[in-house]
Amino acid sequence: MRWLLNTARLVRITSAESVCKKTFIRNKNKVRIMSAPPNTATPSTSDPNSLDLDKLRLSVSEQGDILRSLKEQNASVDEVKKATTELKLRKKALEDAKFEANKGNWDIDRKKLEDVVKRRFIYSQAFSIYGGVAGLYDFGPVGCAIKSNILNEWKSHFILEESMLEVETSMLTPEPVLKNSGHVDRFADFMAKDVNTGECLRADHLLKAHLTSLCEADDCHFDKYKEYQSVITQMDNYGQQELTELFKKYQVKNPRNGNAVSDPVPFNLMFATPIGPSAANTPGFLRPETAQGIFVNFKKLLDFNNGKLPFAAAQIGSSFRNEISPRAGLLRVREFTMAEIEHFIDPNEKTTPKFEKVKDLELTLFSKGQQMSGGSAVPVKLGDAVESGMIANNVLGYFIGRIYLFLVKIGADPSKIRFRQHMDNEMAHYACDCWDAEMNTTYGWIECVGCADRSCYDLTQHSKGTGIKMVAEKDLPAPVQKQIVEVVPNKGALGKQFKGEAKAIFTYLEALSDCDIKEIEQSLEQNGVYELKIAATDQTYQLTKDLITIEKKMKTFHIDEFTPSVIEPSFGIGRIMYAVLEHVFKIRPEDDQKRYLSLPASVAPYKCSIICISAKPEFDPFLDQIFTSLRRLNVSFKFDSGKTGIGRKYARTDEIGIPFGITLDMDTFGVKPHSVTLRERDSTKQVRINVEEVAQVVSDLSMQNCTWQDVLQKFPAFSASADSDSEQK
Amino acid sequence: MRWLLNTARLVRITSAESVCKKTFIRNKNKVRIMSAPPNTATPSTSDPNSLDLDKLRLSVSEQGDILRSLKEQNASVDEVKKATTELKLRKKALEDAKFEANKGNWDIDRKKLEDVVKRRFIYSQAFSIYGGVAGLYDFGPVGCAIKSNILNEWKSHFILEESMLEVETSMLTPEPVLKNSGHVDRFADFMAKDVNTGECLRADHLLKAHLTSLCEADDCHFDKYKEYQSVITQMDNYGQQELTELFKKYQVKNPRNGNAVSDPVPFNLMFATPIGPSAANTPGFLRPETAQGIFVNFKKLLDFNNGKLPFAAAQIGSSFRNEISPRAGLLRVREFTMAEIEHFIDPNEKTTPKFEKVKDLELTLFSKGQQMSGGSAVPVKLGDAVESGMIANNVLGYFIGRIYLFLVKIGADPSKIRFRQHMDNEMAHYACDCWDAEMNTTYGWIECVGCADRSCYDLTQHSKGTGIKMVAEKDLPAPVQKQIVEVVPNKGALGKQFKGEAKAIFTYLEALSDCDIKEIEQSLEQNGVYELKIAATDQTYQLTKDLITIEKKMKTFHIDEFTPSVIEPSFGIGRIMYAVLEHVFKIRPEDDQKRYLSLPASVAPYKCSIICISAKPEFDPFLDQIFTSLRRLNVSFKFDSGKTGIGRKYARTDEIGIPFGITLDMDTFGVKPHSVTLRERDSTKQVRINVEEVAQVVSDLSMQNCTWQDVLQKFPAFSASADSDSEQK
Repeated sequence: MRWLLNTARLVRITSAESVCKKTFIRNKNKVRIMSAPPNTATPSTSDPNSLDLDKLRLSVSEQGDILRSLKEQNASVDEVKKATTELKLRKKALEDAKFEANKGNWDIDRKKLEDVVKRRFIYSQAFSIYGGVAGLYDFGPVGCAIKSNILNEWKSHFILEESMLEVETSMLTPEPVLKNSGHVDRFADFMAKDVNTGECLRADHLLKAHLTSLCEADDCHFDKYKEYQSVITQMDNYGQQELTELFKKYQVKNPRNGNAVSDPVPFNLMFATPIGPSAANTPGFLRPETAQGIFVNFKKLLDFNNGKLPFAAAQIGSSFRNEISPRAGLLRVREFTMAEIEHFIDPNEKTTPKFEKVKDLELTLFSKGQQMSGGSAVPVKLGDAVESGMIANNVLGYFIGRIYLFLVKIGADPSKIRFRQHMDNEMAHYACDCWDAEMNTTYGWIECVGCADRSCYDLTQHSKGTGIKMVAEKDLPAPVQKQIVEVVPNKGALGKQFKGEAKAIFTYLEALSDCDIKEIEQSLEQNGVYELKIAATDQTYQLTKDLITIEKKMKTFHIDEFTPSVIEPSFGIGRIMYAVLEHVFKIRPEDDQKRYLSLPASVAPYKCSIICISAKPEFDPFLDQIFTSLRRLNVSFKFDSGKTGIGRKYARTDEIGIPFGITLDMDTFGVKPHSVTLRERDSTKQVRINVEEVAQVVSDLSMQNCTWQDVLQKFPAFSASADSDSEQK
Repeated sequence: MRWLLNTARLVRITSAESVCKKTFIRNKNKVRIMSAPPNTATPSTSDPNSLDLDKLRLSVSEQGDILRSLKEQNASVDEVKKATTELKLRKKALEDAKFEANKGNWDIDRKKLEDVVKRRFIYSQAFSIYGGVAGLYDFGPVGCAIKSNILNEWKSHFILEESMLEVETSMLTPEPVLKNSGHVDRFADFMAKDVNTGECLRADHLLKAHLTSLCEADDCHFDKYKEYQSVITQMDNYGQQELTELFKKYQVKNPRNGNAVSDPVPFNLMFATPIGPSAANTPGFLRPETAQGIFVNFKKLLDFNNGKLPFAAAQIGSSFRNEISPRAGLLRVREFTMAEIEHFIDPNEKTTPKFEKVKDLELTLFSKGQQMSGGSAVPVKLGDAVESGMIANNVLGYFIGRIYLFLVKIGADPSKIRFRQHMDNEMAHYACDCWDAEMNTTYGWIECVGCADRSCYDLTQHSKGTGIKMVAEKDLPAPVQKQIVEVVPNKGALGKQFKGEAKAIFTYLEALSDCDIKEIEQSLEQNGVYELKIAATDQTYQLTKDLITIEKKMKTFHIDEFTPSVIEPSFGIGRIMYAVLEHVFKIRPEDDQKRYLSLPASVAPYKCSIICISAKPEFDPFLDQIFTSLRRLNVSFKFDSGKTGIGRKYARTDEIGIPFGITLDMDTFGVKPHSVTLRERDSTKQVRINVEEVAQVVSDLSMQNCTWQDVLQKFPAFSASADSDSEQK
């Protein structure tokens, strides 16, 4: 069976309880990318005609038309659901076929990269001497430097260039914060237990593995195959009840040992830990995302920005998710670095003049329209995408452009980057648009950056939970008369009825939006009562007309007060790093053992290597001189003092992506002026440079003040013996 | 009552169970700095003569002599203990008096600094809209930038300049790792509970507060006062039993409400959280220090360094300690950034040629000798300190010098840095020497960096726990015949007796040091049995002669295999940052409201501010030009577009330590060549510079390629109206 991957979701998806009350849930086990179905009789692999992508595209497109027309005719929910399922199934077959068709294009072998990663301690499973812990990784010197350089580029590209406000907030988070943000109740995956061994398994993994093995059975009929695949394709949509029923229906067992498994139960993915000595007093969690640390500081940040919108706050930091069964290396881990931006903006002014700077960029966009019609991702100019409405507004468009430029800057292959728009059914209700930057890897297209318009959800939630206004203000051009609506509590009656909890109700009522008040008004009129749920106290209160009154009055406004919208680009740094490593991993055509990471100098772990042709003490003063000059220029380097030959040393530095190499040879102290050779990693070409000059040249190359072409022109080429790169004399 | 501070300990202290078996405990509530005793009749404050520092010094010195002579005469433990207590008491009186005498020298007012910190969101208590959580802090844009710049300087000063191997390891840590390191059993403070309210209180805080209030009572006799103070002084040394007895003896109550409190119990300071879905399977903790992540990766790092010693690994990362009652702002927190270096070295070659570079540095050293004799910290050249044996070896001396240079580089006042040597009684048994870099603040001398020779403790522990050798090798000049001693297990008998646990015993026996084996041999000979404690299984096993045999044989060695020693400089970044903020906080003599942070440019949150004399659109192209040039040069800046006057804007940028300010005034577009003014924060002097040149000048100033004096000489001075700095025209 081929390896199946669930790409974890970096952005959050809401399921709206009502138009105004939104809570978000973790979008469970999104089956984004999957290898082709197993080699049984299937439409997508066994029939040679089925490999015809055009036919598959047509089949998707036809189903898309059917779905659209059903929606236009206001067909029943059931009918629409059925048609959506069929569409998904067809889309999956198409994706599988496309993946299969493209497989030949992969010029990297994951195993060879993994060998380098392990052997050179780029990263490795944490606590390996203790047997290791799944989902935890340690970064060795090379991995740590690459990651740190990616983050520095990120800071310079976003924080410095965009004048963002960088913050660093607490990872330990008290429960009420995550209660209000929705994580305590809903940030969960479904889990089932092996009833004999107690092993915990992810319900969706279990179901999928079970159905896949049924598909693989020799006697699997095509109708059954289609049914199983249909269930797999819909995996995202199942709640606890549906999963329980499917477990029963298909008699799901633990595939490892055939043991029975329990019914699926939700498992919250946050790491819980009490804060302070009394567990009862302050329950807390490790944050599952860095964003909440920005939202709770919104008022301070707005103040810092002199009360002005728009502004963006950014944070680089660790987040934690207690995955039930982490796998796929850096792609699904329990502790990971995120870089998140929350761009706060007036919801009525979602436009930026800076869009001009990116509007001519041509990106590969995979819009929901193309996904619906079975089309491919296509190159589109950002300007056109915004103008045609494919991208909702130019602020979102601007960030998409900036994300693309960042990924390319740190070494991603532009042909392996696409932006995929969320389908209507997977997108949060509060979001008017959401695009994921996906990077193509041997695991398929992996979501690495989410870029969503998150509306005012989080600020509103924290405001309701604390009673503290989370709003911005702007001067109105002229005073405006407006009707205002308030919910006025009958404090005496409420106090009498709800005692100590009445205060939380007052607080909540003060922070209501107009939209909320409308809902309360309607409910009171229709039912005579409004059922108030408060996340912070986890209680429901029956509010009747004698307890609250809706009051309307006219008021003159000189300033407009509003809850800002948030546009959130959210980067998974580990995933980006892994994808870049795959993109830059190369093997020299002449020798399969000669592997190198073609990293840009800015991201490379060291800017240059230093190699000495022998350990003679005559070299020492020249080494010292070069070390000192490089350090003065803040250029990182790695001195390889090992006893192996030059060729082996070059291979060692290439393998970890060091772009330039200084070699001290016999001519260095034998001939005046004293000189060394400088080698470029990708071309393996060398020039000869004086000892005094070489550090500055490496610095200029690393800072992109000059190119290797410039160096080739300025300095005499050096060619050692014929096989110089395997064994220089 | 004056505010008392316990400075938390950054380095670990061992209490040796035997010479070879070391486990470390957290050095609880080290009373390092304390304000003078309350104003009752006390020898140190009420009697004017007692303020005579010389007398106090003499009294300490005399007692030091007594203690020394007792030790020479091999006096009883009790006698020595008594004399040590008296010495401590006298030293405390001296320290208090010195602190009192120096108080007048403080030219900073903590409240004023705190006002700036809060108002400008340098940092603030986390989750303040939720009421805040003690011991958790968020860094706003200014604090985040300062902290990040300190860390960048740290990286450049240590990792780059010393070619250290930087790693980034997991914060979540499985229990066995911390069991072997000793944290699970011993990383605890003592806690008592208010029996009525359930409030958790630190036992030592409680006892101290109680005794202090007894001291303050009007009817407190001098004898009693001395007794109470003596208990306070010895607070570090008390274990659970002694604390329990003292609680009873003095009838300790909760000072807040007079309620009775429970007996003290140990409270482990690690945050516990299970890793993975099954709590029983993988208990884990958030790491209390970053060092263990380096130790468990020792073999990979040695490999990466081609098997060569010495080398240093370094890590910057978060650690977590669930303090019972955190206080004193950034000085005692629950989540904090550490920067730790583990320098691995051959225990027989503790010497470095690099010491030459720092040997002439004159530092303020407070040796244990001076502490014993009541002397002061004195300036000593590092070379002399190592030569005289005051500092144990020149590797330790080298790091002390490098730490000092780092602290000064990031803005610490050299006169407020001292290195205090651990006394014999506070130093770990495995450590041959330990020095703390302390920084003087309004809270007293605060330990900010620990620099200890940690011997081979951790590597040995992990080796014993996993059975994996943690050793380095070196070629012997000639083959050597050596007797080797092994403990040979009788596997059959052990297996029969200990069943499933026998494997842990085999593993343990394989990893024994010669020293361990000697102990086992002695015990077998004397008692016929050896009691084996294994931390990993938390069990004790009775090993008799029929279960194990000690075998000795001669063997020829070509390489020497040894467990490296570790020298560990460990930096508390939050504390360092706080101390530096105090050191650089200044108030202009002419106006108490004009406050500024005199941070070096490399640490300043932004390198320059940009101010425009009005919002006229004519300025826009010049602003754009300056923004673009600064970004191209990677120079961070803050544009203040607010509507307030220039003077107010200068004050705002000074307050957050921005070293340079560019102002666009009427001459910028009115007169050709277009020019701006450039202002320096500390002197408030200004020059006039052409628009095209200004970014490069700021970049040169920030990178220390030129000084402000150079700029003053090169460019024409600019003086605005008389009170230019309060309101420039």
